[in-house]
Amino acid sequence: MATLQDIGLAAAINILSAVAFLIAFAFLRLQPINDRVYFPKWYLKGVRSSPTSGGNIVGKFVNLDMKSYLKFLGWMPAALKMPEPELIDHAGLDSAVFLRIYLIGLKIFVPMAILAFAILVPVNWTNDYLDNSKLEHSDIDKLSISNIPPGSKRFWTHLVMAYVFTFWTFYVLYKEYNKVATMRLDFLASERRRPDQFTVLVRNIPPDPDESISELTEHFFLVNHPDHYLTHQVVYNANKLAKLVKDKKKNRNWLDYYMLKYERKPDEKPTCKTGFLGLCGTKVDAIDYYTKKIEELSKEELLERERVKKDSKSVVPAAFVSFRSRWGAAVCAQTQQTRNPTMWLTEWAPEPRDVYWNNLSIPFFYLTIRRLIVGVAFFFLTFFYIIPIAFVQTLANIEGIEKSAPFLKPIIEIGFIKSFIQGFLPGIALKIFLILLPMILMFMSKFEGHVCTSVLERKAAFKYYFFLVVNVFLGSVITGAAFQQLNTFIHESPDQISKTIGGAIPMKATFFITYTMVDGWAGVAGEILRLKPLIIFHLKNFFLVKTEKDREEAMDPGSIGFDSSEPQIQLYFLLGLVYAVVTPFLLPFIIVFFALAYVVYRHQIINVYNQEYESGAAYWPSVHVRIITALIISQLLLLGLLSTLGAAQSTPVLLALPVLTIWFHYFCKHRFESAFVKYPLQEAMMKDTLEKAREPNVELKGYLLNAYIHPVFKGGDDDDDDLLIVDEPYNDEVLVPTKRQSRRNTPVPSKHNGSSPPSLPDVSREL
Amino acid sequence: MATLQDIGLAAAINILSAVAFLIAFAFLRLQPINDRVYFPKWYLKGVRSSPTSGGNIVGKFVNLDMKSYLKFLGWMPAALKMPEPELIDHAGLDSAVFLRIYLIGLKIFVPMAILAFAILVPVNWTNDYLDNSKLEHSDIDKLSISNIPPGSKRFWTHLVMAYVFTFWTFYVLYKEYNKVATMRLDFLASERRRPDQFTVLVRNIPPDPDESISELTEHFFLVNHPDHYLTHQVVYNANKLAKLVKDKKKNRNWLDYYMLKYERKPDEKPTCKTGFLGLCGTKVDAIDYYTKKIEELSKEELLERERVKKDSKSVVPAAFVSFRSRWGAAVCAQTQQTRNPTMWLTEWAPEPRDVYWNNLSIPFFYLTIRRLIVGVAFFFLTFFYIIPIAFVQTLANIEGIEKSAPFLKPIIEIGFIKSFIQGFLPGIALKIFLILLPMILMFMSKFEGHVCTSVLERKAAFKYYFFLVVNVFLGSVITGAAFQQLNTFIHESPDQISKTIGGAIPMKATFFITYTMVDGWAGVAGEILRLKPLIIFHLKNFFLVKTEKDREEAMDPGSIGFDSSEPQIQLYFLLGLVYAVVTPFLLPFIIVFFALAYVVYRHQIINVYNQEYESGAAYWPSVHVRIITALIISQLLLLGLLSTLGAAQSTPVLLALPVLTIWFHYFCKHRFESAFVKYPLQEAMMKDTLEKAREPNVELKGYLLNAYIHPVFKGGDDDDDDLLIVDEPYNDEVLVPTKRQSRRNTPVPSKHNGSSPPSLPDVSREL
Repeated sequence: MATLQDIGLAAAINILSAVAFLIAFAFLRLQPINDRVYFPKWYLKGVRSSPTSGGNIVGKFVNLDMKSYLKFLGWMPAALKMPEPELIDHAGLDSAVFLRIYLIGLKIFVPMAILAFAILVPVNWTNDYLDNSKLEHSDIDKLSISNIPPGSKRFWTHLVMAYVFTFWTFYVLYKEYNKVATMRLDFLASERRRPDQFTVLVRNIPPDPDESISELTEHFFLVNHPDHYLTHQVVYNANKLAKLVKDKKKNRNWLDYYMLKYERKPDEKPTCKTGFLGLCGTKVDAIDYYTKKIEELSKEELLERERVKKDSKSVVPAAFVSFRSRWGAAVCAQTQQTRNPTMWLTEWAPEPRDVYWNNLSIPFFYLTIRRLIVGVAFFFLTFFYIIPIAFVQTLANIEGIEKSAPFLKPIIEIGFIKSFIQGFLPGIALKIFLILLPMILMFMSKFEGHVCTSVLERKAAFKYYFFLVVNVFLGSVITGAAFQQLNTFIHESPDQISKTIGGAIPMKATFFITYTMVDGWAGVAGEILRLKPLIIFHLKNFFLVKTEKDREEAMDPGSIGFDSSEPQIQLYFLLGLVYAVVTPFLLPFIIVFFALAYVVYRHQIINVYNQEYESGAAYWPSVHVRIITALIISQLLLLGLLSTLGAAQSTPVLLALPVLTIWFHYFCKHRFESAFVKYPLQEAMMKDTLEKAREPNVELKGYLLNAYIHPVFKGGDDDDDDLLIVDEPYNDEVLVPTKRQSRRNTPVPSKHNGSSPPSLPDVSREL
Repeated sequence: MATLQDIGLAAAINILSAVAFLIAFAFLRLQPINDRVYFPKWYLKGVRSSPTSGGNIVGKFVNLDMKSYLKFLGWMPAALKMPEPELIDHAGLDSAVFLRIYLIGLKIFVPMAILAFAILVPVNWTNDYLDNSKLEHSDIDKLSISNIPPGSKRFWTHLVMAYVFTFWTFYVLYKEYNKVATMRLDFLASERRRPDQFTVLVRNIPPDPDESISELTEHFFLVNHPDHYLTHQVVYNANKLAKLVKDKKKNRNWLDYYMLKYERKPDEKPTCKTGFLGLCGTKVDAIDYYTKKIEELSKEELLERERVKKDSKSVVPAAFVSFRSRWGAAVCAQTQQTRNPTMWLTEWAPEPRDVYWNNLSIPFFYLTIRRLIVGVAFFFLTFFYIIPIAFVQTLANIEGIEKSAPFLKPIIEIGFIKSFIQGFLPGIALKIFLILLPMILMFMSKFEGHVCTSVLERKAAFKYYFFLVVNVFLGSVITGAAFQQLNTFIHESPDQISKTIGGAIPMKATFFITYTMVDGWAGVAGEILRLKPLIIFHLKNFFLVKTEKDREEAMDPGSIGFDSSEPQIQLYFLLGLVYAVVTPFLLPFIIVFFALAYVVYRHQIINVYNQEYESGAAYWPSVHVRIITALIISQLLLLGLLSTLGAAQSTPVLLALPVLTIWFHYFCKHRFESAFVKYPLQEAMMKDTLEKAREPNVELKGYLLNAYIHPVFKGGDDDDDDLLIVDEPYNDEVLVPTKRQSRRNTPVPSKHNGSSPPSLPDVSREL
């Protein structure tokens, strides 16, 4: 059991390391040479340009202005200064609302901590149960619920506080949901004209023997949304083409690298090997080799572009359909189009940059199968991941390596390497797995078939949260691998489970305090240093950069990474809510984490991160529901804890709490969720009307024509890509002659459910 | 343990009683005097008229044609003869689809029974485990899974059969869901013009300081659905008026009764007492008394009608909004109107006769509170109902009555009455509760605030099903009151629970066979006899009927009563699925039940029951999900049973079944459910287009004007009710001048979220 002194020491160490990070950051960010690493957002905006352009040669790389070092925490107030509306303008609503998650942490836990220290701590402290008992205990335990003798009447205080804390959390969550919903709707209302406001993504267009997908789509919407349909864009399966473009770019990078090398040492022709990773194979002239390879790829790309353009099979049964007004798009996105609800699926189109193109063509049935597979796989990943890792660990010992690769024996037997392998290898498999986990989860979400990046990140975040709760939180409380817990859950009664876990909660307080400091405080301070991007930037800068454009490409601002960062915050909500009643001493550490993280991420969002997409804070319902989940977990654990402490009579009183919480969840869901899913017609109509009054003669069709084309068809880093921008001739003729055979011959109805019935294309001409 | 002989005897008794019922029915239905009881549906349709009008005096009451008695089962083929499309035409889609539930029972269980008797019964029978063991057992147990020695390899047969049965059920359910969804959509497509096709129910219209609800509604929809809005009808809070009308009718009935009495005995003026139930109070001349009372009520009613008409407070914040086309209505019903999703709630309007008027005015917040209250109350009702009943039972013994009402002592002490009370009273409280239960559940559903009768019945059916599963099924398997089960569920581990219940399943087979015969067979046969309506009809006929119209009113065809009859069928699905693998001997009894019930209810639906509403089989998703639930319960119990029988290695194989079943549920939900919730735009557009082509000049506004008025304002059994039909002058002027103060003075925006913003009424004039 850690004493107050131990905790104090750990805190001191962690504070010192955090301060060291901050000082290092303050020093590094002032060096002009690192400017692009610490302020990439401003470069992207075009507001800031290289400070290296002026001054003397040393000044280009090192900041010589000593005064600026004195204000080494000066970035903090600067980060807090920007007002929220400006922040939204600068970094988007997603980022601004992301910061509110930290603020919620402060709003929930600061009053809780004050109340807990004013009421609960004295109530706990003024007992001498632990002193009298023979139980091993620390000073912190004397502040916690453990210090109250079993069956004492004082537990009523904790009970009342559990209610107070729950209602306070309700209040904050309700206010915040309301605020974010309003912010989202205001944001959507104030946005300038954007293609996705007029566009609906249509998926699962049924195959038709007589008409192409493009014609079928046009007919369908001309008939079923006659006054509103404007135009549409089909989606091409350009996955192969995208791969070719990527390949070509990689080869060109290598070519540049060797050219640069040659320029520096013109007497030595650079060479490379053609085999695996350039490590084996025949040696060739590098510049010739890559030039040839790029030529080949260019040809192949040209052919593929032609093929995609002409081959009707490369058209995916999905389309982006645009309407004359936002009202028409809102109507189409919210309604069901045909009898078969798995055909002609319409949803509000994501932003063009948010579209995840690879998943647009998966049919409904495969989607459900994929979800089943991912569900089962995720279950096994969460509860049984430790088994293959333990297996790898048993293999990855000295004897195992020597057996499977005898030729390595002489190297391994060297003392230093041997001790390194013995000390390091067993842990490395787990470490690698944990680093790869967000990527594995993202891959799972992609396999599930969601069509926009924002949704992918949300789904991956849910999975990561579940993994953290099971393996980090529960795994730390009842020590043991997850599949052993699973065994407990099946073989123990629900009240026994809540007693086992709840009873272990107070003992783990010191562990979680240390965890908060190491993972929370130091992690956040490390975040601001951006060590990885810093190193990569300087490496690239040294090896590849020739022009200003190269330098721009070398800097990688990155993005917040909702899928991994949000679940980590949620873990602190869980810890705070669980320990608020049990060991209030943990709360200040959580508060410091939230405050520090708020400042640091505000700085990062303003100066560093670039938005990959703008979803208009569509993730808020999942943030909300996760805090609700944490609340319910905390209530159930308190219930178990109190019944182990002989306060079983409190059970019915406490049971009302989760019921209330679930009710509160549904209340909020009905009250707010649709703001994040649907687009109210009144809002759409207002925006349409205003726009019509301001710009009566806007040419919408031209504006929307090329909004949704696959990025490889868009202009960019290639010179030969204007090949395929317009997929159809631009015409104002809305009457498309039917090619339906059944029309030309006998009026046999088309058998494909969901496609428009044969009589309708004619009707459309009359309308 | 019952032997085969015992079961045979019980079966014989039940078959005999069922046959007795059927013969009694065959006899009674042929008597002309009962014609209105057994064929009311045809009278309502106007196809059939009283057979009493012709022939001799005896022939009016008794059927003298002896030949007709010989074919006493002749109604059965007659009931089966009517083809389904005609049945839909005759009795509506709800009734026709209701019959399909019984058909599903046959489709699932007949092949299952054949397979089980071909494979499982021989596998079970060819063991001698029970003979060798000292366990008490019957012949039936030798056919069941109990006859297989623990740990035997033969359990793999049961496992494979569990898979086969599950997939067979999937197949039938999928086919049936598909079929019903198609039937529903075809039914909607083929319906003639009906007001609800064009109408949307709007609830939670926000209050506005400047405009009445009617004006506000008109403005709102003129602005937000400019091309589609046609007209609207506000809803009046006419609950008090409805009560007055009902009172008046009751009094008029009494007046009629006394008038008739006076006519028959003109020398004796009838009198009545004015007190409680006519039992106490002063004696007065009955005819004068009721005439006066009716006069008073008429006056009061007139005043109330005037008040409702004029008082703006009697307008409820809800309205029926009608559109120019089905497309417009479908769009409005499926979309969100304003930022605040709890205001201007739109849903597809129910049929006028399906509307439950009392609930139209409940605000959103109260709805959520009411749902919480009902949820908690229903939980206590299900698990703890036995406690108050046990309490009443302890009071309702001889001593208790003697103590609380000493004056009854002399009567109670009479031997016959004493033994009656002792034998009968303890059970009567429970019996009364069970009879009242569907009404209590319906009251709960009404309190929850649903706005149509069809939804109320669906919600009550769910509650009744839950109650039956907990208290009848689980209560019979693990004997004990529900709250004791609840205790078990909390204090035992999940695998222990499934072992306890699963292990008890085979022993209860004979009980459930008897239950099926008594409750199922005899119950269905009793249903066709219609004893209660028969008696009531003859009583009314004797006391009240003067004219042909009275006689029509005296006959009460009733309706199927989805809320209580469907859950009872579901219980047999549960029994069949649970015992299919365990004791296949039960299946034939279930099959007989389904077959008999199918014929009987088909007859009743054709000849007796009247539709209260037509929801287009909107209840099918809940029927489907309940069969799925039964399937999952059966799988979990089999899992428990097999692990008690030493076949624990089968657990992982069996665990896949519930996972697959849940997946199948979601698959079907996504695939079909929206057909029951939404109205596809393509269907709406087709119907609109066809109608426009056939009847280009239909006057829709007049047609819709009075479709949705409270029934008390409609013509009917009163002479003074055309007072309030049109609430606003009929005009074609769509531009309603705003009364908004903020418009007249300064343009301050209205603070009421969801009402149209101030700038829009003007804009609407420009559109």
